[in-house]
Amino acid sequence: MENNTLTATAPATEVIINREQLLEHWQGHRKVTRRAIEKFPADQLFSYSVGGMRPFSELIMEMLRIASSGVHGFATGEWLQMADLLKHTGLTAPTSKEELLQLWDVVTTQIDDYWPRIAPDGFHTTMKAFGQYEGTITSLLFYFIDNEIHHRGQGFVYLRSLGIEPPFFWDRN
Amino acid sequence: MENNTLTATAPATEVIINREQLLEHWQGHRKVTRRAIEKFPADQLFSYSVGGMRPFSELIMEMLRIASSGVHGFATGEWLQMADLLKHTGLTAPTSKEELLQLWDVVTTQIDDYWPRIAPDGFHTTMKAFGQYEGTITSLLFYFIDNEIHHRGQGFVYLRSLGIEPPFFWDRN
Repeated sequence: MENNTLTATAPATEVIINREQLLEHWQGHRKVTRRAIEKFPADQLFSYSVGGMRPFSELIMEMLRIASSGVHGFATGEWLQMADLLKHTGLTAPTSKEELLQLWDVVTTQIDDYWPRIAPDGFHTTMKAFGQYEGTITSLLFYFIDNEIHHRGQGFVYLRSLGIEPPFFWDRN
Repeated sequence: MENNTLTATAPATEVIINREQLLEHWQGHRKVTRRAIEKFPADQLFSYSVGGMRPFSELIMEMLRIASSGVHGFATGEWLQMADLLKHTGLTAPTSKEELLQLWDVVTTQIDDYWPRIAPDGFHTTMKAFGQYEGTITSLLFYFIDNEIHHRGQGFVYLRSLGIEPPFFWDRN
């Protein structure tokens, strides 16, 4: 090997993460978020806020809308709203902590169902997510996961400011 | 192809993200975090807190210690403290916003320098990060990035509660 540059040493086929690991990564984060919902007092979940920000329930609904439309879009190329995709469950407009957790679990199953339908070697396919955000499936998916981590971190501050210890960030099981 | 399961359809060599994209992903997030530091009032950065949590400066120092020791560990297998690795800069114990930003930039360069030295196909190598957290380079690195997103999200709440608009989460340039 003539030099030590990136291109020379790292093969183009280098597998950094595979799709099973990536699904586990996503669902692992979602388990932490679910525990954050569980920790939230039912009577504050839809109303409590810090710094004029949205209540945790609204941050959670954003995560759910993104995940539900997202995994369906990745697998099918069609971008539909969660309210339509999951209409049959009667759970898409939760008004209680219990309903929100039920919807969370429906989306968990939906992700597991659609994930294997993403085309082989399809993660580099460019899509226009929600009809407007263009990127590869990989870049869009990381955006979705990172957005969840970001907002869940904010929910942790809400919990702390309510005197409640958040779940462990590192426990993804 | 006989069935539609994950194993049957996704090749083991499927490349979801390559090392250049992963570096860009990490450094892109670090740009957002740097902008969050820039937005923070200098007189609050080391003291302001919500819910009894650590000041933003301490969250930032955690990110820096992890990133600095981390990228060095990934490349060399040795786990040294940032205070030792970057001792020559005289910047490892910042007491002002300006010094914190200078240290940030030193670590940015350090990451770029060490990244190509991670062994080809080395991301699945198991390491004991900081002498205690065992995982593959991939799993440890995602932990580091996610930890930064998590704490930066908390910094966004601090900013909002100070009446300051955070940087755009989506702008990674």
